[in-house]
Formats: sequence, C-alpha cells, structure tokens
Amino acid sequence: MSDSIVSRRRAIALAGVGVAGVAGAAAVGGALVKGASAEEPHPVEGAVGFTGEHQAGIVTPAQDRLHFVAFDVITKDRERLVGMLKDWTTAAARMTAGRDAGEIGAVGGIPEAPPDDTGEALGLPPSALTITVGFGPTLFRDATGKDRFGIAARRPEALADLPHFAGDRLDEAISGGDLCVQACANDPQVAVHAIRNLARIGMGVVSVRWSQLGFGRTSSTSTTQATPRNLFGFKDGTSNLKLEETELLREHLWVQPGDGPEWMTGGSYLVSRKIRMIVETWDRSSLAEQEMIVGRRKGSGAPLGKTGEFEEPDLDARGADGEPVLAVNSHVRLAHPNTNGGARLLRRGYNFVDGSDGLGRLDAGLFFVAYQRDPRKQFVPIQRSLSRSDEMNEYLKPVSQALFACPPGVTGPVDFWGRALFS
Amino acid sequence: MSDSIVSRRRAIALAGVGVAGVAGAAAVGGALVKGASAEEPHPVEGAVGFTGEHQAGIVTPAQDRLHFVAFDVITKDRERLVGMLKDWTTAAARMTAGRDAGEIGAVGGIPEAPPDDTGEALGLPPSALTITVGFGPTLFRDATGKDRFGIAARRPEALADLPHFAGDRLDEAISGGDLCVQACANDPQVAVHAIRNLARIGMGVVSVRWSQLGFGRTSSTSTTQATPRNLFGFKDGTSNLKLEETELLREHLWVQPGDGPEWMTGGSYLVSRKIRMIVETWDRSSLAEQEMIVGRRKGSGAPLGKTGEFEEPDLDARGADGEPVLAVNSHVRLAHPNTNGGARLLRRGYNFVDGSDGLGRLDAGLFFVAYQRDPRKQFVPIQRSLSRSDEMNEYLKPVSQALFACPPGVTGPVDFWGRALFS
Repeated sequence: MSDSIVSRRRAIALAGVGVAGVAGAAAVGGALVKGASAEEPHPVEGAVGFTGEHQAGIVTPAQDRLHFVAFDVITKDRERLVGMLKDWTTAAARMTAGRDAGEIGAVGGIPEAPPDDTGEALGLPPSALTITVGFGPTLFRDATGKDRFGIAARRPEALADLPHFAGDRLDEAISGGDLCVQACANDPQVAVHAIRNLARIGMGVVSVRWSQLGFGRTSSTSTTQATPRNLFGFKDGTSNLKLEETELLREHLWVQPGDGPEWMTGGSYLVSRKIRMIVETWDRSSLAEQEMIVGRRKGSGAPLGKTGEFEEPDLDARGADGEPVLAVNSHVRLAHPNTNGGARLLRRGYNFVDGSDGLGRLDAGLFFVAYQRDPRKQFVPIQRSLSRSDEMNEYLKPVSQALFACPPGVTGPVDFWGRALFS
Repeated sequence: MSDSIVSRRRAIALAGVGVAGVAGAAAVGGALVKGASAEEPHPVEGAVGFTGEHQAGIVTPAQDRLHFVAFDVITKDRERLVGMLKDWTTAAARMTAGRDAGEIGAVGGIPEAPPDDTGEALGLPPSALTITVGFGPTLFRDATGKDRFGIAARRPEALADLPHFAGDRLDEAISGGDLCVQACANDPQVAVHAIRNLARIGMGVVSVRWSQLGFGRTSSTSTTQATPRNLFGFKDGTSNLKLEETELLREHLWVQPGDGPEWMTGGSYLVSRKIRMIVETWDRSSLAEQEMIVGRRKGSGAPLGKTGEFEEPDLDARGADGEPVLAVNSHVRLAHPNTNGGARLLRRGYNFVDGSDGLGRLDAGLFFVAYQRDPRKQFVPIQRSLSRSDEMNEYLKPVSQALFACPPGVTGPVDFWGRALFS
C-alpha cells in the first residue's frame, strides 16, 4: 500500500502545478503585473508577479477578496525567525504562481510525513493572489522595552505607536501584532489557502493573533477598475491613490531614500482598522441625510454640487441658502487632501460580515487598510480630524487597529522578506 | 435642494434595475434555471428564476458564496408576521432578478424617508442569487409549549427537535431559530445585500439570531459542476444528490403528498451544522492517515482501492493483509447509503473562516447544510453513526445546529412564502 501512496503523492505534486503552473511560470518570468501595460492590469484568474522593487498587493489592482492575519512571534530565536521568513518567501513565490506551497507529502522523500501543502487550492488558478508582509512595532521592542531580535535600533521613526483616537474602543486581542500577512485574491479559497499554509510553515515560530476575512473590496487602486460600494451603499475610494499615478505614489506611498533606515526604502507603512458599521441605524436615516454625511450622491458617487463621480469636490461652494454645499463635518470634506495639508493614502479596504452581534444585528463593517509613506504625516492627522468631527462616527465603532512596516519587494531567488532588516 | 434629491432618487431607482434588470427580467419570465437545459445550468452573473414548484437554492447548481441567517420572531402579532413574509417574497423576487429590494428613497413619494434598498449591490449583476426560506420548530411552539401563531397543529412530525449527538458542544446562541434565510450567489456582496435588506424589511418583526458567511462551496449539486474541496483539502460531495437525478430527488429530497401536512408538499427539510475544523492538527497528520480517515485519495478524490473520483466505493474490498481497504471507521464508509439503509442527503455546505480562536489558531471549518425529505430517516441516523465512530471526529468540533422546514416554491405574484401554512 505504501507504494501506491507514494505514487499518489507524486501525482498530486504534479497536479498541484497543473493548469495554474503554466500561467504562473509565465508571469514569474515575465513583466510584473503592477508595472505591466494598462491593457490587462487585473488578471482575474492569472498570476501577479511576485518579485520586484515593491511588494505586490499594494498598488496591484485591488482583488475582490482578502484574508489578513496578524501573528505573534513566539520564539526567542532570531535564526528561527529568519529561517521562517526565508521559508515564507519561497512558499509565497510558489503560491502566487498558482502552485502548492510545497510538494504534497514529499518532504525529503519521507512517505509518512505530513503534506507540505494543505490541498484545498489544488486545481484552482492563481486568481491574482498577492501576499504582502509587514513588521509591527512590537517585533522591534516588546512591551517591556526588550530588544527581542537585535533590531530595535533599526525601528523606523515612522513606525511610531499610533495615538488614541476619539471614539475608539479597541479590542487589544484583535489589534497589533508582530508580523502581518495580507493575502488578496479573486478567489477567497486561494487567499485562505495562502494564509493557512504560511501559518502552518510558521508553526512553533509564530502564532495567529487575529485574522480577518474581507468578502468585497471597497477601493479601486487602478483607473481601470470601477469604484465599488461599501456597506453604507456608497461608492468608496473614488479619489484613492492609483497605480497609474507614478509621481503621487512616489510622494505619498513609497518610502524614499533618506526617509529613515535604508531597509525600508521602497517599502510602505500599512495601517489596518476594523470598523464595525451600525448598518441597521444607517438604514433608518433618510437618503438626504446619508448623502449629506458622506458628501456624495448615493447613486452616481458624484460630490454634492457636481454631477460626475470623478469631479473634484468643491470645498468652497455655497448653496442658495449661503450654507456650504459640502457640510462642514461631511466625510468627503474632512478626508480631503486640502483639509489635511495635502496628505493622501492608498486605501485597500474590504467589506466584512462576521456573523451577528448577539443584539439582533449583523456584525458588519469595513476592514480599512491604507498604505502610505509616513503614517505620522498621513493617516494620523487625517484620522484625528475624522475622529473628532465626522458626522459618520455616529454609525461607526472602531474595534481594532494595527500598524506595520512593509519592506520593499523581494528582488530575486536569494532574497527574502526582511533580508535587509536582519542582515 | 429637495428637488435635486428627488430626481437623484429616481435616477438611482432606475440605475438599480440597470444592467442586472435585463438579464433578470428574461430569466423571471422564462424557464427556471433549475429546470433549464444542461448547456447553461449555472449562470455566474445571470438570474435564477424565483418562482416554481420548489424553492430555488436547493437543487440550483451550488453558487460560490453564502450568507445564511436565522431570525427570532419578536412580534406576537400573526398578521405582522404574515405581512412581513409577503414583503419578503416581493423583495426577494426583485433582488433575485438583479433589482433593488425596493425603490431607493421612494416610499410612497415621501422625500425624506429612508431608502427602500441599502444600495451596496447597485450596479452588480444578479450573480445567480437565490433566497431560500425555512421555518424552525420554535415558530410553531415556543420553549414553554405555547402556540405562538396558531400554527402548532400544523407542525410536521418530521420537524422533530434534533437529538443530541456524541461530541457536540453546541452554542445555543448560534443554534436554532424561528426562521432562516439562505442567500447564495456568486458574488458575496449580492448575498449579503439580500440578507441585510430582508433584515431591514423585518425590523420590529424579526431580530437576527445568528448569521454565517461561507466563502467557498464544498458541494456540487449538478453533474456539470466540478467537485470543490473542503478545508481538509479533500474533494467533498462527490456522491451528493444532484439536480439531474430526478427520481432520487423525489425519493430523498422533496416532501411528497401524504408525508405530512399538505403545506410542506414540494418542500424540503434543511439541517445546518457549523463544524469547526481543527486544521492545524489535521495538517500535522500524514497524507496516508488523512486518506485513511476520509476513505478517498486527496489528489483525485477516488475512493481508496479505485482510481476515478466517481467510481463507487467498494465497502467489501480487502487488501493483501486481509484488512478492509476502506477502514471500518472511515468517513466514506460511515456516510455511505449502504451503511445507512439507503439514506441520502443533498448537501450544500460552505467553507468558513471566522477570524481566529484566541488560542493561536484560525477559527475555520465547514458550515454544513443538507436538504432532505425527512430528517428522522436521513440526517439523524447518518449523523448518529458518524458521531459515534467517524475517525474524523478527532479534528471536528460541532458548535451550532439548526433545523428548518422549507416550504415549496412560490408559484406566482399573489403567492408568498408560507401562504399555505398561514391560510
């Protein structure tokens, strides 16, 4: 019987490469999708290139589904941590190409070993999977101030602990984390498979702190994508930074030489916030009130006073009654770059529904994800302004927050996530 | 300003019909997808017919995504309950055709009223949405034995409370329910939108008891569909009942005349079980052990001792060592009709990941959904056998269970869900 098991395993390993492998191999060897021509920037089933100057999954046209995980590092051994980051990089390169994380049941040829891939994505295409890794403040120095892995001196100043924002009732158990992995794909089974296999590979080194599924994207990160809707029913992310805006990305998204420690050059800072939306209350408010709070039309997404979604909001316009067309505390006004010293974000959030809340309501909302060059100059001032004044806050309940430094991309076969940080 | 709001509302209402409406109207007026030709039984973006002898969403080729909700009825007023069921039916007919649940902001022409649709599915295609309704045992008689709505005498005997199964640690807060709604679609935003709008319409009549998102189907209900994989990485539902097996469906799925109260003829009984899968432990077991427990090959899905996925398992086969090829406590053997007096189910489950469990692991598993003619003769004996002996139980943790009587389909514009039950 062991003969047939071994041959089955080989067959599975081959099957795991199968259809997906063809598309994957082509993409890995060829141009990166993020830098590719505008004609096909969003392969629904194909592969997104893994290597490059920046990590994929940031300006990559936002895929439809998300599985995000934050890990605690449970080892004290720096070498084990570095070894895991190398193993993760290898597995991620395989999985984003549509392959298995490792050969199923073929670890060093030992027939009775557990499979090196969990199997649930066998036969599925790459589905534009991207895997993006970040390092949390606590990886550099723990709560007691201890330099856990000899990298405390390399902690960027931009990776400063986030301040408390008015109205936040954060659950520490689902906030923060030493490491994060954002897996985005057009098939949720592919995103879940990626996170699960990285957790499996990290056994004994990391432990899942919290994880979040997002079922629908709420932002576009490319001019080729239609603007999706959040659970308030409004188009979201119309004025988001987009991959085509190369100059703006340099100014607002990517860490530049001289910004801080060299290992972060080409990287970006990720802020996540899980924001429960009290949709039942929102649904009882009138359309006029909803549009006043958002500052946009619900149907078209046009800023109030304009007719097209992509028209610039006019912050100075006043109606016949002399009142501002865009209310002083409307979301669009408060989040607008002109209200925030020009600060902008690349948002990449997802809608979530996590069952119900035990009070007869859906536990639904937005898992906000934003990338930026320096949170101290971008997310923090914008959120401070929103948390103080946004009329929308009446319907929002932020429950989780985290900050991670996402290093630059992996540039070739000997490179790995965090190489410059740990070298 | 109120003028422009009104016209915007009209524009939105029209937009809500938009692209989706075209496909939807055609399907509603034409043949039901469940009875349609085999060439296109699974419209990824199109509409599934709403009316028919049976409710859609049972033999409809299983869509990729699920939002399931159980409600408590919080009114004592039978007329309000019946009124809501009528409103639900109307809204469901619109939504499954790709339209909004009601016109946005146009309730009786009152400009300042809340919108009659929440908006997040505006512009999205019907996405094969089906909405399936069921009545729980507690709708007929509450825990104190009270006949709440004058229908206790109409409770089918087949809707008997489910027994306790070995190993179950059910959480009452996410079990049971007076009413259920299963929304399946190929776009999760469309499924969530449907549930949310029915909850909104039911405000004051029902309250959300629990809800569950499923990100990936784990069963095929048509011979035209490839068998998907569960989170153990195995193909699941290979020998499921399928829509093409008309004779078997009559015998095992649809309630027949004389089975019980006439209002259930053409209906079916739904059992749901939320089963946490301890994937971290499973992933540490060898491929040989996994395949022995399941009784199938991980790669091909073939029963042990066979080479093709759809070959019949040979329960009598013995290996060279004289031991059964299919272990006595393997899942395939214990669930096989021959082990259960011929009993079969139509399974329609979904994979879920609900974040993490606070112990460093993903909170992941299977939201099992099965339809049948009589749970006392089908689900109960099969589950009793599995709960006692299945080797897989070591990796399973059932946390929720519910049973609902799903009435037959709505047959025309004056019909509504539960009409025969409440008339």
